[in-house]
Amino acid sequence: MPGSALNQFGVTVVAANAYTLPGINTLGISLARIDYLPYGLNAPHTNPRESEILVVLEGMLYVGFVTSTSAPNVKNRLFSKILHPGDVFVFPMGLIHFQLNVGKTKAIAFAAFSSQLPGLNIIPNALFGSHPPINDDILAKAFQVDKKVVDYIQSEFERDNF
Amino acid sequence: MPGSALNQFGVTVVAANAYTLPGINTLGISLARIDYLPYGLNAPHTNPRESEILVVLEGMLYVGFVTSTSAPNVKNRLFSKILHPGDVFVFPMGLIHFQLNVGKTKAIAFAAFSSQLPGLNIIPNALFGSHPPINDDILAKAFQVDKKVVDYIQSEFERDNF
Amino acid sequence: MPGSALNQFGVTVVAANAYTLPGINTLGISLARIDYLPYGLNAPHTNPRESEILVVLEGMLYVGFVTSTSAPNVKNRLFSKILHPGDVFVFPMGLIHFQLNVGKTKAIAFAAFSSQLPGLNIIPNALFGSHPPINDDILAKAFQVDKKVVDYIQSEFERDNF
Amino acid sequence: MPGSALNQFGVTVVAANAYTLPGINTLGISLARIDYLPYGLNAPHTNPRESEILVVLEGMLYVGFVTSTSAPNVKNRLFSKILHPGDVFVFPMGLIHFQLNVGKTKAIAFAAFSSQLPGLNIIPNALFGSHPPINDDILAKAFQVDKKVVDYIQSEFERDNF
Amino acid sequence: MPGSALNQFGVTVVAANAYTLPGINTLGISLARIDYLPYGLNAPHTNPRESEILVVLEGMLYVGFVTSTSAPNVKNRLFSKILHPGDVFVFPMGLIHFQLNVGKTKAIAFAAFSSQLPGLNIIPNALFGSHPPINDDILAKAFQVDKKVVDYIQSEFERDNF
Amino acid sequence: MPGSALNQFGVTVVAANAYTLPGINTLGISLARIDYLPYGLNAPHTNPRESEILVVLEGMLYVGFVTSTSAPNVKNRLFSKILHPGDVFVFPMGLIHFQLNVGKTKAIAFAAFSSQLPGLNIIPNALFGSHPPINDDILAKAFQVDKKVVDYIQSEFERDNF
Repeated sequence: MPGSALNQFGVTVVAANAYTLPGINTLGISLARIDYLPYGLNAPHTNPRESEILVVLEGMLYVGFVTSTSAPNVKNRLFSKILHPGDVFVFPMGLIHFQLNVGKTKAIAFAAFSSQLPGLNIIPNALFGSHPPINDDILAKAFQVDKKVVDYIQSEFERDNF
Repeated sequence: MPGSALNQFGVTVVAANAYTLPGINTLGISLARIDYLPYGLNAPHTNPRESEILVVLEGMLYVGFVTSTSAPNVKNRLFSKILHPGDVFVFPMGLIHFQLNVGKTKAIAFAAFSSQLPGLNIIPNALFGSHPPINDDILAKAFQVDKKVVDYIQSEFERDNF
Repeated sequence: MPGSALNQFGVTVVAANAYTLPGINTLGISLARIDYLPYGLNAPHTNPRESEILVVLEGMLYVGFVTSTSAPNVKNRLFSKILHPGDVFVFPMGLIHFQLNVGKTKAIAFAAFSSQLPGLNIIPNALFGSHPPINDDILAKAFQVDKKVVDYIQSEFERDNF
Repeated sequence: MPGSALNQFGVTVVAANAYTLPGINTLGISLARIDYLPYGLNAPHTNPRESEILVVLEGMLYVGFVTSTSAPNVKNRLFSKILHPGDVFVFPMGLIHFQLNVGKTKAIAFAAFSSQLPGLNIIPNALFGSHPPINDDILAKAFQVDKKVVDYIQSEFERDNF
Repeated sequence: MPGSALNQFGVTVVAANAYTLPGINTLGISLARIDYLPYGLNAPHTNPRESEILVVLEGMLYVGFVTSTSAPNVKNRLFSKILHPGDVFVFPMGLIHFQLNVGKTKAIAFAAFSSQLPGLNIIPNALFGSHPPINDDILAKAFQVDKKVVDYIQSEFERDNF
Repeated sequence: MPGSALNQFGVTVVAANAYTLPGINTLGISLARIDYLPYGLNAPHTNPRESEILVVLEGMLYVGFVTSTSAPNVKNRLFSKILHPGDVFVFPMGLIHFQLNVGKTKAIAFAAFSSQLPGLNIIPNALFGSHPPINDDILAKAFQVDKKVVDYIQSEFERDNF
């Protein structure tokens, strides 16, 4: 599988999808290997159009997803679990989810997706690192913080995203 | 259309979907009327499995969406526009988007969705107002801020979400 | 939204679909604004592959659809209703339906479709105004009228369709 | 295949679909045998959600379909052909189509549908034979004829449909 | 319909699909006429992505399919039947199936498929007549026979497939 | 993941699909871990409705698939490869495929499927081990061998399948 750089959260994702393995196009499936440094975080993100199954090969991962705001009775409910090698976890289509390496050693997992080209929206990067930036009025209002906090976070992501 | 309460951001959403209008089930379409107080914000959110068309009836809205982190060359790109009555804007499936009333008077829009039961993940509420809360280590690391900032935001949303 | 001419039945349809708004392609959704002169008729038609939700903004519309001939027990059943501003009505995929402005003033409605390019078969125009015309034997037999009646209707539509 | 009565247009349709052959449910396919008396007509109709392939076994059929009113350049175009035994013809999804036995002897055809439960809207019956009837104002305006003509046609279909 | 040669098992298949009838592309349906010599066999095969309905026009066919190895309780179950003219039989998507002419005269059937381009994997030809050949170790182990038996069968198919 | 017995070919498959992990239902994805004894064979089989990606974790596998008999120019073509740990291989939907452990030690792989409940037709078992058995005339004709060979193979599978 072609390589991919370590990101700012201590995680490397190497994907076999329709970009990196063209023969997979139209087949409705793809795969990724995820390597986590100790305490590496696969930051909260969504895969808009596909579900994901994760299987842990090495290390110990704390994983979770949050149910939809529109789901009656269970809205914004966090489902989370600590996974060990051999454990399997499912992230339903479109929901915000994350994985954190909670062990002192590196961790490795494989993720399978129900699409040949899974989308990926890393939420902190999309919200605070977009080009051009989202108006800080909007983010301050959305997260109920002062605009200075927003400006600070935006400056952190601006540096990272280039 | 059945009523719905004003939310913490100054917006009311009244939906004709498969919950509120059971006859719509299996038909693959739904509709919502959105009323915005002056400076009301429809906070950054995703509709996981459906696209949305918005048409403005009254007032002036600043709207935008951020492209996927996985889209090569255009990753995390913000597309935004100011809309006036009669203007139409499309939010592609799964992408993070928002609308802000930038006029001094209320605004009204209709949104149509390519699903009879559109999902809705309001990002600030899902990340900072989930039950149980997401571990503040994860959020501090993801947004690159101090845990105290995370704890403060979580306490704001905890109050609002009940 | 790009303009569209007033048709022979007193109705103007302005569509935001994959022809008029190319960015909408692949998104599975589209929208139309329909303006009705007093007593204007959106003549009986089908949208072959998509459902439709109609919301009335202004005026008073008499709307209806006829169930499928193949639906046991409810075949050829007419469901109809008078709609006022704010009312919502759903036309299920593929069924013959219509709207008539029954007020003395103009009416306005928005229609959302579960397709980026909804098809449209206006039945009187397709049957009596096609090029070349459908053999009048077939139409006389189908509608159980004399061929002279068919020829008369065909001549009316021939003039209108050019 | 279970039997079905001769209809008012001289045609018998015997279907192997999800009603008559429950095992076919979920399989996405069905079949019908159509027998035509001399000059029998399978009246103009639509199959909303499915395409159809017709193969002629016996006799000579004049068949045709009309393109969509929304198809630019080719709107309301009639495509028709005379078919002999062994000939195959395709009716695209959702378009109005018909078959007429133009021979002096009976004709037989098989039709295959891309659905386990094809819908069927026979247009004259749906428009002029619905229960309750469609308001004659609407039909008179739609077909550009006097209301007396509409009332006459409605009375013909009312008798037949019971 | 365009012609097709008699195969090694005494069967001719003439298909109206997206290769032979390009207009059928995107319509999700196709048709084939199958002619069987006396004792002709349509050898065990799968249609990967589509279901099939068969209707017998002439002769007497013994037909069957085997359920999936993964179906609990009914795994590897053979469903079979003798069909006469007018009889209809359904082969569910993806399952291995066959037809054998068990009469002394030729037989004719029509098959309809829920795809415009049905795939076809004739199992003996795919396993024993592929290019390059499948390693005989694999086939010997799979069918639990001596490699000499595999080599013999491979040589038979090699000759036929060219 | 729940366990599963070693089969007659020296392979154990442990699946996380909609039977063993009900939460996965409707998500369109599943996973299996496959353990191969030295020289263990995952016998030629099809997954009717889904594609598969295989990633090797341990050992050395010889894998391949045969293209469709209906694919012009490339019909019955074998694509095969030897895979080492970290290598990825894709089996397109519906095609016959296999894996053989060609190392002296055990091998382990993960397979991801584009369905929550992948079907599985193991070809030798379906053809020679069905209940009731497929008529030996059919199998003898299909594989071009003497009926005695068929009867012998059937007796081998009969014993194994109970």
